[in-house]
Amino acid sequence: MKVDLNCDLGESFGNYKMGNDEAVLPLITSANVACGFHAGDENVMAQTVRFAKAHNVSVGAHPGFPDLKGFGRRNLDMSLDEIYNMMVYQIGALKAFCDLNDVTLNHVKPHGALYQMGAKDRAIAKTIAEAVYAVDPNLYLVGLSNSLLLEEAEKVGLPTASEVFADRRYEKDGQLVSRKKPGALIEDTSEAIQQVIRMVTEGKTTAITGEEIEISADTICVHGDGAHALEFVKQIREKLSEVNVNIVKIGG
Amino acid sequence: MKVDLNCDLGESFGNYKMGNDEAVLPLITSANVACGFHAGDENVMAQTVRFAKAHNVSVGAHPGFPDLKGFGRRNLDMSLDEIYNMMVYQIGALKAFCDLNDVTLNHVKPHGALYQMGAKDRAIAKTIAEAVYAVDPNLYLVGLSNSLLLEEAEKVGLPTASEVFADRRYEKDGQLVSRKKPGALIEDTSEAIQQVIRMVTEGKTTAITGEEIEISADTICVHGDGAHALEFVKQIREKLSEVNVNIVKIGG
Amino acid sequence: MKVDLNCDLGESFGNYKMGNDEAVLPLITSANVACGFHAGDENVMAQTVRFAKAHNVSVGAHPGFPDLKGFGRRNLDMSLDEIYNMMVYQIGALKAFCDLNDVTLNHVKPHGALYQMGAKDRAIAKTIAEAVYAVDPNLYLVGLSNSLLLEEAEKVGLPTASEVFADRRYEKDGQLVSRKKPGALIEDTSEAIQQVIRMVTEGKTTAITGEEIEISADTICVHGDGAHALEFVKQIREKLSEVNVNIVKIGG
Amino acid sequence: MKVDLNCDLGESFGNYKMGNDEAVLPLITSANVACGFHAGDENVMAQTVRFAKAHNVSVGAHPGFPDLKGFGRRNLDMSLDEIYNMMVYQIGALKAFCDLNDVTLNHVKPHGALYQMGAKDRAIAKTIAEAVYAVDPNLYLVGLSNSLLLEEAEKVGLPTASEVFADRRYEKDGQLVSRKKPGALIEDTSEAIQQVIRMVTEGKTTAITGEEIEISADTICVHGDGAHALEFVKQIREKLSEVNVNIVKIGG
Repeated sequence: MKVDLNCDLGESFGNYKMGNDEAVLPLITSANVACGFHAGDENVMAQTVRFAKAHNVSVGAHPGFPDLKGFGRRNLDMSLDEIYNMMVYQIGALKAFCDLNDVTLNHVKPHGALYQMGAKDRAIAKTIAEAVYAVDPNLYLVGLSNSLLLEEAEKVGLPTASEVFADRRYEKDGQLVSRKKPGALIEDTSEAIQQVIRMVTEGKTTAITGEEIEISADTICVHGDGAHALEFVKQIREKLSEVNVNIVKIGG
Repeated sequence: MKVDLNCDLGESFGNYKMGNDEAVLPLITSANVACGFHAGDENVMAQTVRFAKAHNVSVGAHPGFPDLKGFGRRNLDMSLDEIYNMMVYQIGALKAFCDLNDVTLNHVKPHGALYQMGAKDRAIAKTIAEAVYAVDPNLYLVGLSNSLLLEEAEKVGLPTASEVFADRRYEKDGQLVSRKKPGALIEDTSEAIQQVIRMVTEGKTTAITGEEIEISADTICVHGDGAHALEFVKQIREKLSEVNVNIVKIGG
Repeated sequence: MKVDLNCDLGESFGNYKMGNDEAVLPLITSANVACGFHAGDENVMAQTVRFAKAHNVSVGAHPGFPDLKGFGRRNLDMSLDEIYNMMVYQIGALKAFCDLNDVTLNHVKPHGALYQMGAKDRAIAKTIAEAVYAVDPNLYLVGLSNSLLLEEAEKVGLPTASEVFADRRYEKDGQLVSRKKPGALIEDTSEAIQQVIRMVTEGKTTAITGEEIEISADTICVHGDGAHALEFVKQIREKLSEVNVNIVKIGG
Repeated sequence: MKVDLNCDLGESFGNYKMGNDEAVLPLITSANVACGFHAGDENVMAQTVRFAKAHNVSVGAHPGFPDLKGFGRRNLDMSLDEIYNMMVYQIGALKAFCDLNDVTLNHVKPHGALYQMGAKDRAIAKTIAEAVYAVDPNLYLVGLSNSLLLEEAEKVGLPTASEVFADRRYEKDGQLVSRKKPGALIEDTSEAIQQVIRMVTEGKTTAITGEEIEISADTICVHGDGAHALEFVKQIREKLSEVNVNIVKIGG
């Protein structure tokens, strides 16, 4: 058994520092690198690709809405053509930094509001998948487990990676419980780790309403901000190791 | 004998239209496509690459300073690393649109203030050349005739194209007469055409101070804005044809 | 009887020209000046305020979403606090140019998607009204006739101007027929002019479904782009004059 | 005797946090608030003005180049008209937030590269001064001691505040020693404090070449980033108190 640990990296911009990329890189297998629209810039991208290579971490593009002020977290009503071209542009820009560092661009994970909209809106999901496929049909598309994004990616012919969250509860239909609802977050660390281990090893978890549901866990989303987040990643790694799950990059 | 006709295209942005790309495309052999920093955006880029392909016009990247408000014409004191990464990012983004249209990215021509600074500042010239080479050593670097940009491109090992202007006068050292000086522009159309024909066929022109100087003319910069500009391009094409100069893309 | 003719002006940006401000200024009484977020920049704003003053045209702010690429026409899911602050910033910036030209800022008209969202979403309408009131309680808030924006503006205590469109058809509830529906636009010029004259003089129009509805027409939205648009404005002016309606600025 | 302590505040942008505004506010008398071009945004500005008011700290505008990616620290070759309008826009935007909080905008201090260019280029200095005067002739213009910016501000009729740096060494002509030269920075804290106390109380300091020079110290630039910076501000405050210098806002 195996699973990937992915983290959003390269989110600094100009003089603005965000995240703790150097601390989390030794703990993960895939980096989702911001591409300059919602976060990141060309200098940060250049450095992040080098850092990822140095730590033998697989690189993916993390394209988002052109909304630096809102960090790509605000829904923006773009046309499908605009979404398609925005994907191509951002992936292409990052790919250039990968190419000159002899790094293979391995996956694409949409960011923030684009990720959420792509999970629930079939036309957007299809557009994202088509754009990724057009750039490179070998790219893994990372999407929320049980989302339309993964469905459409498979239809298009892309390899996919189903993403799970250790500390979020799920509805019985396999969707994440909205953050606006009580109980959306698993506050207890051991419960969160238990959930993620079960998702990886059994492909199941218990919905917030008590039902057992199926969930595919190809990659676990982790965070590098703050001592607590890093500690949590370390604990996940330990537990995965104890149950003999290999931590390898997407598709690895 | 042969020469290329290049024109800056894809300079529209969002709802803002600039230029008359469809009118000039049938008249040129190379398009310098803006990459979203000083002009252009991902939607314009997508369309421009398709238009160029439809007209069998060769595509090049036209990277510029991150200064949409100033259209990349204002000197910006960027570090060499910043210039390098800015080049990679913009070329990579355009290359993605070329790739998915089965179009070969053929050349790179820096835009505006970056072009001017690269012509006169050796460190900047070297940085631009190295960035282009790193992305693809087969890309032609287009620079001002007799400029440091061409010198450094050759040192780096890039193929180059020396660019001339029909309607600009030259100093005896081969540099353009500054627009701030009287006589910088050749106002008479037939004189301008005569100059450009001589540059292409003899590799020479007469400096503003009367001396005969050597100038290499691989590509002629033309404009598509307005009826006059289009008429001028047509006249250049006719004269070139009369003297049996083939109009072919850079390196073609 | 009286009515205002308003037009969106100052929408150029950097080297990008939009509209034909100088041609339409002699024909209108109020200018909605873009404030640098969805269109316009500080240089365009400076010039537009001077132009408006020279033509004795009243100046209003035309704030929009921070989305130059989408020209402020794409819905953006901003928080109410973000909308409030965005309004204050843009109005304040324009007011500075008015103040140094001894021009009174007279009104505010939200732009594009913000205008549409403010017409239908009560919380957004209230936020817009409160922001305008906070900057200056004497500013007229211009909104779609029969919209929530006007309702909330009145609650807040702002003077308002109800805006009508000559060439758009209305639903029986007083809302505009969506552009996505057939019949949304009145194609026939004389019918459009007849509708706008009746809205101004009788406060009524005929809905697309045949009912007579009430509509308040304090200001008519006109456009300056192209010969046809200018001709249309001239015809509206003539007809208004024939029926003895004075064309005066909002509140004038 | 009296002096002001000023600090650059409100430099965060969207999700990006910069500085430690809440920690330094109790220690200073003037806040230079970023206006959204090189740093800051409308939400940060709204909050910063409220914070400054709560701490009874005087508010000034801190306008900079439109270069978020370079944090306004890169020279940009703008025309004088562009600089003028950029100043008006940014000051006006901040003034709106001051007005609705019943806070008086007290001063303007150009940021980064604009500050440096305004110190040495007379035409730019004059333009900055004229723009500030046009917005409000009562605004204090803060500039480097012995700079052209202060000279031109006085010619225009603006009140001024001469700014000094505790930990920078000075040339015998009163200019700052360039950071590129050895000895530019005073590393020893007590020496730095001694210099600043002498500048405030005697109007003199010792140049790097040994000469005693005259320097006017109306306001001291301090920083709030990090524990060391805050400690340094506290020590300056203590020493000023010991020698009976009142710490009051500019013009207070």
